[in-house]
Amino acid sequence: MRELRVALLGQGFMGKAHSNALRQVSHFFDIPFRIRCSLLCGRDQASLDRMAARWGWEETTTDWRAAIDHGEIDAVDICLPNHLHAEVAIAAARAGKIVLCEKPLAMNFAEAEAMAEAARNVPNLVWFNYRRVPAIALAQRWLAEGKLGDIYHYRSTYLQQWGPDPSRANVWRMDPSFAGSGAAGDLLSHALDLALWLNGPVESLSGTLHAFTPGRKVDDAALALARFKNGSLGSFEATRFAIGCRNRNAFEIHGSKGMLGFNLERLNHLHYLDATEPDDRQGLRDILVGSEFWKPGHIIGYEHTFIATLAEFLFALDRGEPFHPNFEDGAKVQRLLDAVATTSETRQWLEL
Amino acid sequence: MRELRVALLGQGFMGKAHSNALRQVSHFFDIPFRIRCSLLCGRDQASLDRMAARWGWEETTTDWRAAIDHGEIDAVDICLPNHLHAEVAIAAARAGKIVLCEKPLAMNFAEAEAMAEAARNVPNLVWFNYRRVPAIALAQRWLAEGKLGDIYHYRSTYLQQWGPDPSRANVWRMDPSFAGSGAAGDLLSHALDLALWLNGPVESLSGTLHAFTPGRKVDDAALALARFKNGSLGSFEATRFAIGCRNRNAFEIHGSKGMLGFNLERLNHLHYLDATEPDDRQGLRDILVGSEFWKPGHIIGYEHTFIATLAEFLFALDRGEPFHPNFEDGAKVQRLLDAVATTSETRQWLEL
Amino acid sequence: MRELRVALLGQGFMGKAHSNALRQVSHFFDIPFRIRCSLLCGRDQASLDRMAARWGWEETTTDWRAAIDHGEIDAVDICLPNHLHAEVAIAAARAGKIVLCEKPLAMNFAEAEAMAEAARNVPNLVWFNYRRVPAIALAQRWLAEGKLGDIYHYRSTYLQQWGPDPSRANVWRMDPSFAGSGAAGDLLSHALDLALWLNGPVESLSGTLHAFTPGRKVDDAALALARFKNGSLGSFEATRFAIGCRNRNAFEIHGSKGMLGFNLERLNHLHYLDATEPDDRQGLRDILVGSEFWKPGHIIGYEHTFIATLAEFLFALDRGEPFHPNFEDGAKVQRLLDAVATTSETRQWLEL
Amino acid sequence: MRELRVALLGQGFMGKAHSNALRQVSHFFDIPFRIRCSLLCGRDQASLDRMAARWGWEETTTDWRAAIDHGEIDAVDICLPNHLHAEVAIAAARAGKIVLCEKPLAMNFAEAEAMAEAARNVPNLVWFNYRRVPAIALAQRWLAEGKLGDIYHYRSTYLQQWGPDPSRANVWRMDPSFAGSGAAGDLLSHALDLALWLNGPVESLSGTLHAFTPGRKVDDAALALARFKNGSLGSFEATRFAIGCRNRNAFEIHGSKGMLGFNLERLNHLHYLDATEPDDRQGLRDILVGSEFWKPGHIIGYEHTFIATLAEFLFALDRGEPFHPNFEDGAKVQRLLDAVATTSETRQWLEL
Repeated sequence: MRELRVALLGQGFMGKAHSNALRQVSHFFDIPFRIRCSLLCGRDQASLDRMAARWGWEETTTDWRAAIDHGEIDAVDICLPNHLHAEVAIAAARAGKIVLCEKPLAMNFAEAEAMAEAARNVPNLVWFNYRRVPAIALAQRWLAEGKLGDIYHYRSTYLQQWGPDPSRANVWRMDPSFAGSGAAGDLLSHALDLALWLNGPVESLSGTLHAFTPGRKVDDAALALARFKNGSLGSFEATRFAIGCRNRNAFEIHGSKGMLGFNLERLNHLHYLDATEPDDRQGLRDILVGSEFWKPGHIIGYEHTFIATLAEFLFALDRGEPFHPNFEDGAKVQRLLDAVATTSETRQWLEL
Repeated sequence: MRELRVALLGQGFMGKAHSNALRQVSHFFDIPFRIRCSLLCGRDQASLDRMAARWGWEETTTDWRAAIDHGEIDAVDICLPNHLHAEVAIAAARAGKIVLCEKPLAMNFAEAEAMAEAARNVPNLVWFNYRRVPAIALAQRWLAEGKLGDIYHYRSTYLQQWGPDPSRANVWRMDPSFAGSGAAGDLLSHALDLALWLNGPVESLSGTLHAFTPGRKVDDAALALARFKNGSLGSFEATRFAIGCRNRNAFEIHGSKGMLGFNLERLNHLHYLDATEPDDRQGLRDILVGSEFWKPGHIIGYEHTFIATLAEFLFALDRGEPFHPNFEDGAKVQRLLDAVATTSETRQWLEL
Repeated sequence: MRELRVALLGQGFMGKAHSNALRQVSHFFDIPFRIRCSLLCGRDQASLDRMAARWGWEETTTDWRAAIDHGEIDAVDICLPNHLHAEVAIAAARAGKIVLCEKPLAMNFAEAEAMAEAARNVPNLVWFNYRRVPAIALAQRWLAEGKLGDIYHYRSTYLQQWGPDPSRANVWRMDPSFAGSGAAGDLLSHALDLALWLNGPVESLSGTLHAFTPGRKVDDAALALARFKNGSLGSFEATRFAIGCRNRNAFEIHGSKGMLGFNLERLNHLHYLDATEPDDRQGLRDILVGSEFWKPGHIIGYEHTFIATLAEFLFALDRGEPFHPNFEDGAKVQRLLDAVATTSETRQWLEL
Repeated sequence: MRELRVALLGQGFMGKAHSNALRQVSHFFDIPFRIRCSLLCGRDQASLDRMAARWGWEETTTDWRAAIDHGEIDAVDICLPNHLHAEVAIAAARAGKIVLCEKPLAMNFAEAEAMAEAARNVPNLVWFNYRRVPAIALAQRWLAEGKLGDIYHYRSTYLQQWGPDPSRANVWRMDPSFAGSGAAGDLLSHALDLALWLNGPVESLSGTLHAFTPGRKVDDAALALARFKNGSLGSFEATRFAIGCRNRNAFEIHGSKGMLGFNLERLNHLHYLDATEPDDRQGLRDILVGSEFWKPGHIIGYEHTFIATLAEFLFALDRGEPFHPNFEDGAKVQRLLDAVATTSETRQWLEL
């Protein structure tokens, strides 16, 4: 079995989620690679040492270029603040590495396009991990099969509540030079990726960005209305000021033949209504969706979305097939994020 | 006890709801009037006869002017198609009648303003009956008391599913000359009235109207983003194409101190989260709200919102105080409906 | 159209619910009678006067025998404390009156049998009004059609919370000489009537009655396990000490082909799972059940169960057909209530 | 750091869950041991090889005694069919090993007592992993603090649906010589352990076991009523015939000061009602409970209950303190399981 030597860049919350996925993927999937956690890169050596010991990273470095230059490394996994994504990913791709990158892919569409161009000849992935929530994957399959008929409405909210927390006012996600944007890049990017995957291209949109916090330089909330190419209307709301909601990444889709609903806080559940049934039997059903991890009824959590994403990427890699979501998918999302920002300035709809 | 002789104009579904309210109000409230169901007006005499027999209307007529000219009539209650609201209400007001009018108040803001002007000197009411859902009235009280702190987000959906039904393609609500608009006037008007009552004035908005049905001349769906004067962001979606939803008039409000949620399909319930509690105790609670009708835990239905509205109107009438929602409130909603239509054309935000 | 002159005995909460049903039934159903609210009977004349004025009762009396002896009265509706049910109902039946009686039918099975015997030749009804909740009626129809296959489990809870309330410690429902029992007769009776209607006869049971309150002479809670004739297992819990639950009369039924669930606090909803569908589509669906009262999506409340019960009774009366639930049905429930009390003493299962 | 060399006995579903816990515990907790997955024991060598490769077990054996006799093994983890628990655990304890054993601890109370006796001098654990669901642990803490006041009702259901599945008719769990019992040992054991932990000792009970399947020799369903020492009433229902429920291990607790509710299918959620609040604010709240694994709002799954149990066991081991649930706790559950079986025969309540 082929070895796959991975360098992980980043030692924060996402670094933990990715380390876990790298460790767990072979436990639940018959992947055709032997993953080696070869190199961990971050800025703080003491913390790197602890993290390497905990997750079994073989080596550490405080210089991300070491990962690029490292002859033994096959894949570079980028969990750095957004402003570094483009530089690192392009360097890694040019060095012929497999490149995996956290979302949002870039600071803006221009960067994202450059990244997609640079990565054209290497396997690549953007970590829109929620595509691999089993309930969402099931929804996508049903939509692709036409089970919902013609789509009329796509309604998406990504609601978090930590925006007003003063203890988090100075994290990098609040600094535009590191994050590029606030709720838009952080939350709306997920919502848009799912929308594109589930409901297809957006033709036009009008959005608004807003900071509730005096002096804040990134958006606390991002809202948009959209029209999709399939004729449906879209509504998007991503915010860090939805007090009462810890992580409600939710959508509802209405089509001529039924309705689908999902909420990340209950990620094992898919809501479905079949409008082709007799009227007195129609009701939104709550399906407890199974997974490849455990038996039906034994639920999975947040981390499994990373593991499943990684597994599917590795299978595609083995087959030599392109994986989705990749950098091109990430760039499509970035184009829409830019459009939201633009329309927030122009206060007009924008054709895409 | 003073008699109040009422003429009801309209013999459809709303005529039934109002007849019921007129019959029931004295059973549940100590109202200071003796209601007489004096005159029922509609276009079809046979159907009028049946309805009069069923609900105990003393007389019938097929000429709405008869109600205006009738010396014995104290109050005129208008359940006619929208295009007749202005003419009838203005005539009634000029004849010195108490005037009650179904929503939306008018075909447009100009009409609504004229109605409010004409009714300035007579007691008047617009049937935004959902203000009197006990759960919504409780929410309003809590908001007025500041229980939610600074408001960040107001999210509203009014979702119905009968838009694609071919058997209803030719009802008057689908004809712009009778209805003025589609989902906007019919559904969004309710959502906007609640928003104004619960969250205060709107400063700017950008909306879009859309008909999914080829050849349809009224909107099937109306969406809008808004900024309120209190600094919060609003999101509105009203549609007859939300397959899976029978009557989901719902809102969610997030403030610095908590969250409120409501759904008309479960109108006895109010959702509330208190963000001032310790973190591990915070959860959205489902409050089964009581009413003046029956004991706690014994739920009420759709019709009780009309009865409670009427009761409160009669108490205000007795005290000689103005009632809300009245024609001025109806005109404020109409102004926003016009703004949604305007921005749907200009594709720009509009300052109000 | 024939007149039906009704005497109502009782001026409490149930008297109000019945007065309302008598007033409303002709508004929503084409009943073949003209109901006259002829005589209202209670102990307190001042309160009788107020109630008669409010609901339009023509006459009042403080002597229930006046209702029996009154030559003009066609029907006697008994909303008195339980200890009077048998005497009054038997007297009314012997006088040839139509007899309607609140639940529980009697203080014990012996009384109930005597009542059923006495009423054999007059139309009669016991007010197990929850059979006419549209969602429950739909469940019953589906069960009768075999939609759930072989039944395995029937689980019933009737949960209220007012038991510890000191202000209600001395109401007649807490006095065994007036009420016969506590939660058993008040709540479990409803649960058992639904069980018998939905799931058929009980073959054996073992129950326990318990008073949490020192000195209380009626049961605060009644629990039982049961085996039904159809082979299913039953579990019953009725209590006034379920803090947190205002009026949760709920059941769940599991059969070889699916599951049904209901909760009175959301009486417009029926939960259903179809186990004959593909596994990945199976989920408990929430059906918003319509009614004969208003359009789909416009929900009804507690009071409508009385109106619908009365309507169906009147239609049966007109056709000369027996109505259910009648006194015989009430006696079947009483037999089970007695069995619960017996087994609470013997601490053994009892074959029925 | 001290090494802890573990032998795992069993290669089924639980073997996978335990392997995962052994691999993951050091990733999420600063445990004071270095876990070595030393020896894996099962009956099928080919399958053992695959499982050892997947999870990194160093050695394999088909003879469980090899684990006992193995001088290097510190801890024996038993995931074997129930009939082997006693023999293996006693042998391991006598050999001085740390012993961890799946639930139910034994085939009956006599075995369980012997196991607890034999393990008195070695650290031991029974895998009632649901105590470490964060939501349940929070409930336990609140109950211990008296947040619910005097407890009135404890209602427990453990509902699964695979009982009628013909493909599973011959698994060892359906064979009394391997499993001892059916739903009782498998499901009711979990429910009883939680009840004892959350609500204290049971004083008396009356239960019934039932097999719906002709010829089945273990119970498909186990129901019981109980009285707890704290004065509360208990209701238990465990079944494999609850069609529609995949894994609904749920409880509701009502006390003088509030209510708690839980359902394993939504294991990240705790339901709580505070009855000390003003009446109009009382509602069952849905708390999304956090964990030590990820950030708030990032949910965990089934497997994390094993990891958390193991972590807490290791911390107790390091401190030299007894851990709960241990074999004595397992024996207490077994005593109640025996009582349910006894009363199912005698059809009488049993004092404990």
